[in-house]
Amino acid sequence: MIRKSILLFGLMVLVVMGDAQVNNAFSLMPVPSQLETNSKKCRINEGTRVAVKGHPDARLFAEASRFVRRLSNKTGIFLDKQGFVAASDSNEHALVLINVQRQGNLKLGEDESYNLATNENQVVITANTDIGAIHGLETLLQLVSSDENGYYFPGVTIFDEPRFAWRGLLLDVALHFMPVDVVKRNLDGMAAVKMNVLHMHLCNDQGFRVESKVFPRLQKVASDGQYYTQEDIKEIVAYAGQRGIRVVPEFVVPAHTTAILTAYPEFASVKRDYTLQRYFGVFNPVMDPTNEKLYPFLEKLYTEMASLFPDAYVHIGGDENTGKDWESTPHIKSFMQAHGMKNYMALQTYFNQRLLPIIRKTGKIMMGWDEIFQPGVPKDIVIQSWRGNEAFYNSVKQGYKAILSYGYYIDLIQPASYHYVNDPTPDSARLTGEQKKLILGGEATMWSEMVTAETVDSRIWPRTAAIAERLWSPATVNNIDDMYRRLNITSLNLEALGLQHIAYKQPMMRQLANSYDTKALEVLVNVIEPLKIYERNQGDTMYTVFSPFTKLADVATPDQELPRVFNKQVDSFLAKPSPELEKNIWEWLTVWKNNDVQFKIVLRNAPVLREGAGLSENLSLLASAGLDALQHIHDKQKVNADWLKQSLTIVAAARQQGGRCELQVVDPIEKLIKQAAE
Amino acid sequence: MIRKSILLFGLMVLVVMGDAQVNNAFSLMPVPSQLETNSKKCRINEGTRVAVKGHPDARLFAEASRFVRRLSNKTGIFLDKQGFVAASDSNEHALVLINVQRQGNLKLGEDESYNLATNENQVVITANTDIGAIHGLETLLQLVSSDENGYYFPGVTIFDEPRFAWRGLLLDVALHFMPVDVVKRNLDGMAAVKMNVLHMHLCNDQGFRVESKVFPRLQKVASDGQYYTQEDIKEIVAYAGQRGIRVVPEFVVPAHTTAILTAYPEFASVKRDYTLQRYFGVFNPVMDPTNEKLYPFLEKLYTEMASLFPDAYVHIGGDENTGKDWESTPHIKSFMQAHGMKNYMALQTYFNQRLLPIIRKTGKIMMGWDEIFQPGVPKDIVIQSWRGNEAFYNSVKQGYKAILSYGYYIDLIQPASYHYVNDPTPDSARLTGEQKKLILGGEATMWSEMVTAETVDSRIWPRTAAIAERLWSPATVNNIDDMYRRLNITSLNLEALGLQHIAYKQPMMRQLANSYDTKALEVLVNVIEPLKIYERNQGDTMYTVFSPFTKLADVATPDQELPRVFNKQVDSFLAKPSPELEKNIWEWLTVWKNNDVQFKIVLRNAPVLREGAGLSENLSLLASAGLDALQHIHDKQKVNADWLKQSLTIVAAARQQGGRCELQVVDPIEKLIKQAAE
Repeated sequence: MIRKSILLFGLMVLVVMGDAQVNNAFSLMPVPSQLETNSKKCRINEGTRVAVKGHPDARLFAEASRFVRRLSNKTGIFLDKQGFVAASDSNEHALVLINVQRQGNLKLGEDESYNLATNENQVVITANTDIGAIHGLETLLQLVSSDENGYYFPGVTIFDEPRFAWRGLLLDVALHFMPVDVVKRNLDGMAAVKMNVLHMHLCNDQGFRVESKVFPRLQKVASDGQYYTQEDIKEIVAYAGQRGIRVVPEFVVPAHTTAILTAYPEFASVKRDYTLQRYFGVFNPVMDPTNEKLYPFLEKLYTEMASLFPDAYVHIGGDENTGKDWESTPHIKSFMQAHGMKNYMALQTYFNQRLLPIIRKTGKIMMGWDEIFQPGVPKDIVIQSWRGNEAFYNSVKQGYKAILSYGYYIDLIQPASYHYVNDPTPDSARLTGEQKKLILGGEATMWSEMVTAETVDSRIWPRTAAIAERLWSPATVNNIDDMYRRLNITSLNLEALGLQHIAYKQPMMRQLANSYDTKALEVLVNVIEPLKIYERNQGDTMYTVFSPFTKLADVATPDQELPRVFNKQVDSFLAKPSPELEKNIWEWLTVWKNNDVQFKIVLRNAPVLREGAGLSENLSLLASAGLDALQHIHDKQKVNADWLKQSLTIVAAARQQGGRCELQVVDPIEKLIKQAAE
Repeated sequence: MIRKSILLFGLMVLVVMGDAQVNNAFSLMPVPSQLETNSKKCRINEGTRVAVKGHPDARLFAEASRFVRRLSNKTGIFLDKQGFVAASDSNEHALVLINVQRQGNLKLGEDESYNLATNENQVVITANTDIGAIHGLETLLQLVSSDENGYYFPGVTIFDEPRFAWRGLLLDVALHFMPVDVVKRNLDGMAAVKMNVLHMHLCNDQGFRVESKVFPRLQKVASDGQYYTQEDIKEIVAYAGQRGIRVVPEFVVPAHTTAILTAYPEFASVKRDYTLQRYFGVFNPVMDPTNEKLYPFLEKLYTEMASLFPDAYVHIGGDENTGKDWESTPHIKSFMQAHGMKNYMALQTYFNQRLLPIIRKTGKIMMGWDEIFQPGVPKDIVIQSWRGNEAFYNSVKQGYKAILSYGYYIDLIQPASYHYVNDPTPDSARLTGEQKKLILGGEATMWSEMVTAETVDSRIWPRTAAIAERLWSPATVNNIDDMYRRLNITSLNLEALGLQHIAYKQPMMRQLANSYDTKALEVLVNVIEPLKIYERNQGDTMYTVFSPFTKLADVATPDQELPRVFNKQVDSFLAKPSPELEKNIWEWLTVWKNNDVQFKIVLRNAPVLREGAGLSENLSLLASAGLDALQHIHDKQKVNADWLKQSLTIVAAARQQGGRCELQVVDPIEKLIKQAAE
């Protein structure tokens, strides 16, 4: 029996691409430094070829070949004649001509600029380095436009270069492991928005994620079998390098080392039975800096790891040491007293000073979190700032190089707009030109307490594209509405790379609803978000590495579009009522009001969703109150006091969490209710 | 601006899971040998534990641990207390108790049976081997049911064992390469439906896909960089073995060897410039069996490859030799004459007889396609039959062991029902008991001319589950309607494993439509299928390895449910009209009639979809004619001759392909039209 809900109740879709023909020159993300458009159209057809001039290299040939396949997949045009772009492809009249001067080096500050110019017959990309040219190819793919005659590259003249040299994504593969294919598709996403540093957080209390041949107990007893082989690491580094992306490894010491201490407990400050930590949080286990055997161990470990990661930087973590295991251990306490150390932070500085020559010996530059910035630390380290902008400016004001992560914590489920306005060098910081130069850039941080391989893309994308733009584009590119317009388009472009940030939702909803019919669930999911900041994990007590992350709070995504747009519509309506806005608001409220009946039917077969029953009921009651309010506003009748009191009770109830999620349309409906009482 | 199509035009969803509470004992796939149900319910909650008795091994512990996580993910119940099932988990009162006698061997004919019994307090799985117990765990996951009190295992008593010992899936990773993660998720799918052989087709004219350390040119010049490292192969073999699945490698000789000959042209029959074949089909390049240096080469190659694949069998292909390069080469022709060989097949038999001792020396049993079955071939080989059931029965009647693939060619886009009724030992074959014993089983074959990593799951699943059932369950389990009912549920279970057979469609539709709104495209996609058998590739001339497989024919899937169900509804209606059926048919026809207007709007921004414009128009015209017919049937008025003629013209036009797809609702609408003329 076919049952159709079509005529009764349909699925809502936010249509972000208009009917009009789009010239994608105005949808680029990140926005180029300089962009001029013209009305010329360079047509793409089966004769389209890519040719390379100057001093191309293997990387450029591979990326140009990948460009051909992506262009073919996007347009459906058979470009079979050019299986690979090779040195023999040097026809000056090829539709896409790339001219590069030299191979770029994977190092901080390398020239990443490019020029891109289109006329009717040709696109020419000119760059000093192949890395610049690769950025140009990403821009060119974003430019693909269409009209009644098919696909074309629109006429543009672009000069583009990054504002900051360090544009990173921290991927935490320690708290929840991320398989190689997840890392690879996120590298593709990073390249698409011109990010250039993958910072891999490779160990923590929950596991050590890289095979060590020198200390094999690290993967044997401290990874649950979830680690990268050295071959995997080489593959990731090569894959990243192919896209012009550096890989900076982080091996956290001296705290957050439960995993290392599980494998090698002799380096712990306190003798205990160490086993992998299953919860997430800040714990006491810490290495013993007074143990002279620790330093040869660290030297061997960092030396082996350094050999896997060719980048000039290595991150030593250094964060969140509680100091308790130091303060409570007599021989360490004595050591501190003997060396005149006032507190455990002084001991950590001592530790860092011992570690620094080890890192230098491996040929690397040491970097770490805010905490390593203590009096006496040499100036050739780099500080990654997570504690706040003040700490960040303080570092550079004292002459240290720094990168910003505070404000880019994408695990905290805040909207893209929040991250977008977080400028690393705002005027308000009153930095000198010299100080500004010390600010290398920033990194979005994807901590993985609450994410798995299945959901991680949805926590990274598309929001990280807004951060990528902040770090690449001129500071003057800061219109939030336009950012969101382009972010919607960018999100589809990212999906073309295989990223699962949109696609994971339907399968997860089918699993949750235990049905192919996910409409009622989707109506709810589209107006909720997971609890923000660190609320979801109830003070680190609720979730462990073994918890199911396949529930309502996992299918809910950050920065939902519908509530954002609905809120804007309500604001517009309250500022200046119009029949069209009123109709829109009325229709959405009606959908939400009626959805609970359908959702209750879903719940019969889906006990896992019953934790969301309250959210769905509250949404219905709230929408119902909103409809009453709208009617009163329409009729220009003031509501009575009882109704208002009752409605505000509904509003308060609707702010309660359910299934570790919260409704995102409470504020705009509350505004309607209050307006109706005016 | 939010635009809502909700109130205008909704998305249709086939609701296959009813509202009623489902006891999943009746939805198992494959159906067990013996199943009794009772009304007991064994509740699943946070106290649920798995314990193991008898002689468990590392594989069983790992699979039991995976079971705990899957159960937690499916139900959302926190089972964090049991991170891993270990030897210490031996509590006889655990909710799930597994009792195994010994570790199973990964060999043909191993005991795979298990017993599963549920009462209110416990599920007990008893099996001779851990492989049987692992099958029992898959059954147990399928059994998970729910009611108003939450999740439970329903009361059952099951004894289960396979009908055939060889239940395989051939995955062709040569024509289009499939990355390791694609192979792994398909192994998970195989295990879920109790398949036990992954046959990897590892080389063909388009590429050699395994790293060879002895002959590194194979991957260097004959793989386009798309190959498995030896570590990858070990990983795949281990992953498969962990699920009780054998991996049988196929290295095709002497034809389909363009890739090998590209690397080592000295072994070719004809001197040419060999380069990787980009088209798909049957080609002349073939090894020279008269070259004595060929055999040491093959011995080294098969010996190296044998060391990577522990299974007892190795497949040597042997198919589709045109013989032309032999017949046309003087020294080979002379050799054939000197040895009294009448044709090239005799020379291939000579080649096989030379190869057989080489394969034996590696410790393996040789198998190959039908073509290797020639007079004089020794009886310890295994024939894989693709040419037809007669060839298959002929093999076993002459005393050869054989497995069936004819009728299981899932690349040919035929419905599950077609494969399901293809019994390897039907009564009509008149086989003796001894002959039946020679039939080891069967293999679904996923040839990859027309599939990529993105689409391959949708060509394998869920249809292969029907083949898995044919090979596992008693022959008497053969009700097609019930198979489809259970296949729908199984398909969702397969999706929980990460298989992309359903999930890939929405992202691909978004890419095609260049929009988040895919409704109009989906209406069309739900009633079309790719051209069947070998029609899509226009006699091997249309597609190459570089072609875009991201188009309408790629998002269209085999065996669409809606046309099948609609056709049944029309049949029922014509047999016995009812208002309800009439309303259903009317509603669908109305949807299809009206969709073209919406689809045309999609086309404005999506030139790639314009190849489907004709299909959409034809669907609209066809549905319009169907509505007319329905009206006449309703009014009991005969249509006039002109209308009939015109409508049948529409029907004929609607049978034309568009975008290498065809409409699947032409037959039922034609029936309505003809009925209206009666």
